[in-house]
Amino acid sequence: MNNNYTIDTMAEISNKEVTNREEDYSKWYNNLVVKADLAEQSAVRGCMVIKPYGYAIWEKMQHELDRMFKETGHQNAYFPLFIPKSFLSREAEHVEGFAKECAVVTHHRLMNSPDGKGVVVDPDAKLEEELVVRPTSETIIWNTYKNWIKSWRDLPILCNQWANVVRWEMRTRLFLRTAEFLWQEGHTAHATEAEAIAEAQKMVGVYADFARRYMAMPVVVGHKSETERFAGAVDTYSIEAMMQDGKALQAGTSHFLGQNFAKAFEVQYANKEGKLDYVWATSWGVSTRLMGALIMCHSDNNGLVLPPALAPIQVVMVPIFKTDEEKAAIVARMEQLKKEMEAKGISVKLDNRDHLRPGFKFAEWELKGVPVRIVIGPRDLENGNVELARRDTSTKESVPQEGLAGYVSELLDTIQNNMYEKALEFRDSHVVKVDTWEEFKEKIEDGGFLLCHWDGTPETEEKIKEETKATIRCIPIDSCVCEEEGKCIYSGKPSKRRVIFARAY
Amino acid sequence: MNNNYTIDTMAEISNKEVTNREEDYSKWYNNLVVKADLAEQSAVRGCMVIKPYGYAIWEKMQHELDRMFKETGHQNAYFPLFIPKSFLSREAEHVEGFAKECAVVTHHRLMNSPDGKGVVVDPDAKLEEELVVRPTSETIIWNTYKNWIKSWRDLPILCNQWANVVRWEMRTRLFLRTAEFLWQEGHTAHATEAEAIAEAQKMVGVYADFARRYMAMPVVVGHKSETERFAGAVDTYSIEAMMQDGKALQAGTSHFLGQNFAKAFEVQYANKEGKLDYVWATSWGVSTRLMGALIMCHSDNNGLVLPPALAPIQVVMVPIFKTDEEKAAIVARMEQLKKEMEAKGISVKLDNRDHLRPGFKFAEWELKGVPVRIVIGPRDLENGNVELARRDTSTKESVPQEGLAGYVSELLDTIQNNMYEKALEFRDSHVVKVDTWEEFKEKIEDGGFLLCHWDGTPETEEKIKEETKATIRCIPIDSCVCEEEGKCIYSGKPSKRRVIFARAY
Repeated sequence: MNNNYTIDTMAEISNKEVTNREEDYSKWYNNLVVKADLAEQSAVRGCMVIKPYGYAIWEKMQHELDRMFKETGHQNAYFPLFIPKSFLSREAEHVEGFAKECAVVTHHRLMNSPDGKGVVVDPDAKLEEELVVRPTSETIIWNTYKNWIKSWRDLPILCNQWANVVRWEMRTRLFLRTAEFLWQEGHTAHATEAEAIAEAQKMVGVYADFARRYMAMPVVVGHKSETERFAGAVDTYSIEAMMQDGKALQAGTSHFLGQNFAKAFEVQYANKEGKLDYVWATSWGVSTRLMGALIMCHSDNNGLVLPPALAPIQVVMVPIFKTDEEKAAIVARMEQLKKEMEAKGISVKLDNRDHLRPGFKFAEWELKGVPVRIVIGPRDLENGNVELARRDTSTKESVPQEGLAGYVSELLDTIQNNMYEKALEFRDSHVVKVDTWEEFKEKIEDGGFLLCHWDGTPETEEKIKEETKATIRCIPIDSCVCEEEGKCIYSGKPSKRRVIFARAY
Repeated sequence: MNNNYTIDTMAEISNKEVTNREEDYSKWYNNLVVKADLAEQSAVRGCMVIKPYGYAIWEKMQHELDRMFKETGHQNAYFPLFIPKSFLSREAEHVEGFAKECAVVTHHRLMNSPDGKGVVVDPDAKLEEELVVRPTSETIIWNTYKNWIKSWRDLPILCNQWANVVRWEMRTRLFLRTAEFLWQEGHTAHATEAEAIAEAQKMVGVYADFARRYMAMPVVVGHKSETERFAGAVDTYSIEAMMQDGKALQAGTSHFLGQNFAKAFEVQYANKEGKLDYVWATSWGVSTRLMGALIMCHSDNNGLVLPPALAPIQVVMVPIFKTDEEKAAIVARMEQLKKEMEAKGISVKLDNRDHLRPGFKFAEWELKGVPVRIVIGPRDLENGNVELARRDTSTKESVPQEGLAGYVSELLDTIQNNMYEKALEFRDSHVVKVDTWEEFKEKIEDGGFLLCHWDGTPETEEKIKEETKATIRCIPIDSCVCEEEGKCIYSGKPSKRRVIFARAY
């Protein structure tokens, strides 16, 4: 085969396109999202367009999550986009958290402009009560559940919805923080406190499982501190991941809402003894923010690196030839191999575009993070081999065409595991125990998770944030290394466990 | 088995719940949607809550349609919920059709009310330009495509999005006409007129295929008249179904948009000769309105009748017993049979709720339209039989447990076909050729499709609508019975083909 097109050449080509992550991580990220055709800014402030390649990854995430939700007994439903303004005020903390920066619908009609130029808002079409585009749906859903719940027999209610939500963020970044984003929100209703807590824990567990198995992304599961809790929740659980710049990213949250929303919307049920009691609630969600996490957890200076479990294209095939005869023979062989791989459930793209050089194609598919590239040139065809390149390790090898599908199938599993191990190793090498304030201020500049004692007060948390921009990411629950007595790094007061401090997205 | 619980008893029970469709078709429909747990009105005017059972049917529709779109080369993407007000004015006809009744976002913040009661709109947070919640996305999408298209190599673009849209309807009905509804909208860009027309035709064909094969609903494919055309389209194709009251329901539309949106948003491409030309466009969509069509096409006074291809539960199993021993033995046998059916891809619900009588369960699952009910009582268990009831024909038979899964699998196909044939027979028996204005005025009162000659002018169409409330549903293209010369029923002027007039939802 033509050895002009090697991994090194590819790196050169794509280096010209994507900023180096060591130079400017933030710019590298923005650049990559756009260059890899994942998403772009729209004409509407803070709203993104999710392009087909990006949406295909999101669809794979949705598909797995939806299956996991259904396997844990949940059903999908759909609730209104709009929330009457007054609903937001019903739950005292919730309104503080969500009513502020939101899209407010005040009118229901446009009319031709009196000056004949375009359209203007019709002043006669003012709504009696303004509607807010949902920033989250607890209020409208609990107002609905009120009519669904009479007795213990109606419980639990285990609903999820896939929807768009809007939060009027001032500073936006593609996938990480956008005014409109896509998400799922689970909303469950239970007869007992214990059952609701168990549900909230179960769902944060589902998120952790999803992150690890499909995104190949290690996460810590923990409680949020009071300050970082969801507005209206009694307890918030989250999964926290570490990005390659050492910053933390909250990738999913699950809330135990106590009876707060049931009380705000008067949702009571008759228990087995016939007595009325308020219903217990949870809510939980992940969003298109996961796309940002996926990108920043694995990708490199040559582009995306996608875990096989979420890659829309798992294998790309590129023929190399000089003559039409060579092309015909190679493409024919590739078609056969493609069918064999597809029969094993592998998604394969044969890139036989005529007007592009192989080197250009290599760089493009590398940029798009396709896990495996298979190349056949005239000599490979003769020898019965293919040249196979792995995106995660940038290694190449010659592999027999005979049995290729089985080989690739196993290789995809290997890549999936390798990506997780690599990310885990990175994460673990950036978790440090810190015991003094001086050390904290020094170490936080290097990024990573700092395991520290904290006195448990919002005041100390706030001071630490002011001085270092670090926040408590979580109080870990799935790791016992944190359960030890000590003294708060800031106040010196006694503490029973370490918590994770980090700077975060 | 206990013969107290027969089909007749069921009918009695559910008759008490659902209005008779012969008495009041409209009330029957509303009643059924709510009683069968499909959807309900929300606290927000004109917006519905789609309940889990209704949503499960919609998900099945989505699943099949999405597969069909992908098989025809389309990819999903996602575009913003909001459209800048000025975008709507760019295409002259489009703004007339869509800018009028819509949700207008004017502010981006709420603040605590000065009187301390709740929240009010913050007057300082007025948007520079108002945003409209998308009623349809041609404008924002073509503004985006402008940046995606440079040369003929970038074409075609074949995108679809699954989304919510809002049209501020004054009179709403669950599924049929709601302020917010769920839909998919395909938006494609092509280098040539012929290719765009072929695409619009292909997609209306996909819709017709979906309606017939999955919804078991016969449809006529045709062109819309100029009056009924999509605002901004050069030509609109639709599928038109007939409901049981003889009224027509437009179940899907596909538009050839010419170069209208390309011109409005300045989208040009360099052709193979290097010359610039405007891009050709289509758009096409179906919505949760299909749920209304599905219900009104098949259901009866006892409740929903769902085609097996879209039924969330295809088979319900109800045990009948007197003693705990009988229950244990029957349920154990049912679990085995359930597994056998599930292995054949059949979705089965075993209803072993303790506190409900079998008759109540029969009525409930009949109301919910489950295609097949299987009952085992002590004698059936002894004899190795089950009692099997079909929802579509209300017939019962005794079937051996041995080989039940295979039998049911074939039966589900039979039911699917039977439902289509029954609906087709009904439809065809309500299509009449009408040649005089007197006859038209008389026949239109009976409902059905009237095949008539029309002079092709919007004026005549408007007069007929004013006098009879009937509109031209379509100018059929998949049937040759209409291609004949004649005279317009209203004006007497010459006509080359018949069109379909009907009253419509």
